Amino acid sequence: MSRPDEFALIRLLTDRNRTLGRRGWGNAKDGQPPKSGVVVGIGDDAAVADISPGCQLVLSCDTMVETVHFNRCTMRDSDIGFKAMASNISDMAAMGAVPRFALVSISIPQGWSTERLSEVYDGLYECADMFDVEIVGGDTTSAPQLLTVTVTIVGEVEAGKALLRSTAREGDAVFVTGELGLSAAGLHYLLGRAETLGSGEEPSQEPGRRDDGPAPVGEAGDRAPQGAARLVEAHRRPIPALRASAIIQQQGHGRALNDISDGLASEAWEIAEASGCGLVLEEAGIPVAAELLEYAEWSGGASMDWILYGGEDYQLIGTVTAEQAADMKLRFERAGLPFYCIGEVRSDFVGVKLRSLTGAVTDVEKRGYNHFPAE
Amino acid sequence: MSRPDEFALIRLLTDRNRTLGRRGWGNAKDGQPPKSGVVVGIGDDAAVADISPGCQLVLSCDTMVETVHFNRCTMRDSDIGFKAMASNISDMAAMGAVPRFALVSISIPQGWSTERLSEVYDGLYECADMFDVEIVGGDTTSAPQLLTVTVTIVGEVEAGKALLRSTAREGDAVFVTGELGLSAAGLHYLLGRAETLGSGEEPSQEPGRRDDGPAPVGEAGDRAPQGAARLVEAHRRPIPALRASAIIQQQGHGRALNDISDGLASEAWEIAEASGCGLVLEEAGIPVAAELLEYAEWSGGASMDWILYGGEDYQLIGTVTAEQAADMKLRFERAGLPFYCIGEVRSDFVGVKLRSLTGAVTDVEKRGYNHFPAE
Repeated sequence: MSRPDEFALIRLLTDRNRTLGRRGWGNAKDGQPPKSGVVVGIGDDAAVADISPGCQLVLSCDTMVETVHFNRCTMRDSDIGFKAMASNISDMAAMGAVPRFALVSISIPQGWSTERLSEVYDGLYECADMFDVEIVGGDTTSAPQLLTVTVTIVGEVEAGKALLRSTAREGDAVFVTGELGLSAAGLHYLLGRAETLGSGEEPSQEPGRRDDGPAPVGEAGDRAPQGAARLVEAHRRPIPALRASAIIQQQGHGRALNDISDGLASEAWEIAEASGCGLVLEEAGIPVAAELLEYAEWSGGASMDWILYGGEDYQLIGTVTAEQAADMKLRFERAGLPFYCIGEVRSDFVGVKLRSLTGAVTDVEKRGYNHFPAE
Repeated sequence: MSRPDEFALIRLLTDRNRTLGRRGWGNAKDGQPPKSGVVVGIGDDAAVADISPGCQLVLSCDTMVETVHFNRCTMRDSDIGFKAMASNISDMAAMGAVPRFALVSISIPQGWSTERLSEVYDGLYECADMFDVEIVGGDTTSAPQLLTVTVTIVGEVEAGKALLRSTAREGDAVFVTGELGLSAAGLHYLLGRAETLGSGEEPSQEPGRRDDGPAPVGEAGDRAPQGAARLVEAHRRPIPALRASAIIQQQGHGRALNDISDGLASEAWEIAEASGCGLVLEEAGIPVAAELLEYAEWSGGASMDWILYGGEDYQLIGTVTAEQAADMKLRFERAGLPFYCIGEVRSDFVGVKLRSLTGAVTDVEKRGYNHFPAE
């Protein structure tokens, strides 16, 4: 597109959402009744919203930058929006909070068509709708070169009930809420495929093929195992563990909690340092997806590296009193959700160790996920 | 600097603020008592904060992008931070709200040294401290080329008391809270000087001169009138009209309210369209700073163009019942603040007109400020 001026673009995106009858975008003047606590939506200098009585605010934001967090080889446009929203909702899950409202700030380079922008917004809304989050405002600016999306999330938690990183105690069981390393392996696959295809960061523009982002997994003659599709989906469309968080909050015996945005090692270290304790993880307890093993074997990658030092799985790692771990596992099972006890909390050191399948105990490096290795 | 990895950088900026004993950055574990409603500050997955009983949330965000909103010729690094915070606090003023908490997301290109980043944060804090706003969280990412700063502001307003754009009524007086056009004229001066000096977007690096951003106004042999310094200050360090907003809120007879981020014309149009009415502005009533007139004469620019179509002055435009306009003016005077009645609200058309000094009435174009003309 020729770039519409700033105001025309804001209007376009706003009108688009009004047209679709999105919740929360109307204000009193539009004659739409306020829903879900939104008193004034997009269209004034700021949004106005209610939070539930007796609740505290929970606030977080996350930014995704083209070429740093995604490119045309790794993400479809709608994935960018979906993941930007998901990573923020995950921060609410990590606090035991309920996400309520979001603001979206997007800086748009000249090369992005209105259609591609629409796709980004589709993804933002798809994830927001999934978790009943209202997009109540934001900012739209131009950018010289690369797309940047910042989502700010506003959630609520019953006063005093936020689940912090600093509350792990000796004897607690360490748990995770799902399989790990999938997203990093998915990224590994996508980057490797892009290199093989030689498409660099630009999408291929063969005749007859729409410019609709990266080719579907398994196309373009690659020989990756079928399971790679699950890894790619985990990278592109992570599902925040909000249901798991709610169970932990309701059960009432959860202690420390963190979402795994930067790999198991990094997040375990954060709990260890904030709580002033040691976490001993048992390799035997850490869940490993069949697809991850299969892909690691095929690609020559190391599944445990992706699990420990990969990122963006957005599962939760937490601790629970040892007495209540079984009860919590039961509650998860009843909800049809996985729950894995993967270690214990100790007070005789500060840090993270791993007991391997052979019984050898080694220190886990304090490092995390730095997005694209090339950056 | 060689770029520290993402986590090292977050730690650096966070530690820096902890070291300085900034308010709100500590959490329970640091042993600092929570202040100003901050229960958990930076260092967990999200911040936790209280808002005042009986209040509604007011939410907004604004992004500033290098080369779109600022460059090395127009802003010192601390100005970038100051203005990013100021524009957000101004949105709270525009709603009659009290700003409370802010989140800062910053995307940092390789070329930005830690020292320059520190300057940006100094500016952010300087403005936040000025208005008692607590920076409670954010995100720090790398960026390939250009600095991007997004600030999200969370404020509060007594339930039902937010001042919207849609509430202007026939017979209301239209007011502004200060002189306009200064920021746009300041930008005009800065861009013109950069062109004259031929420094493009890069700062000069003469021996003995620190790389501390654009030269002070009046240096480098330019012959601009002394008053240009005020215009430049208005562009770099706008002061949000929060005190004015509080008076309007307390007086209780304010109707519509908007902050002037995109020029008088654009903001008046927003009130007109949202309220379904017409605003007739009187040129005789619109305040014009002596420095603006002087600079317009010197540069050959048109002061009324800057006033109507320039932006980023962050004064307020609003309407008040005609009966209460005098009382409001008196309250402003008592507080030592200017207050200008510049027109009236009509119901026989929707839009904005200007009655010139000669009595001729013309339509005011519905266009606003598009940052750098070159973009």
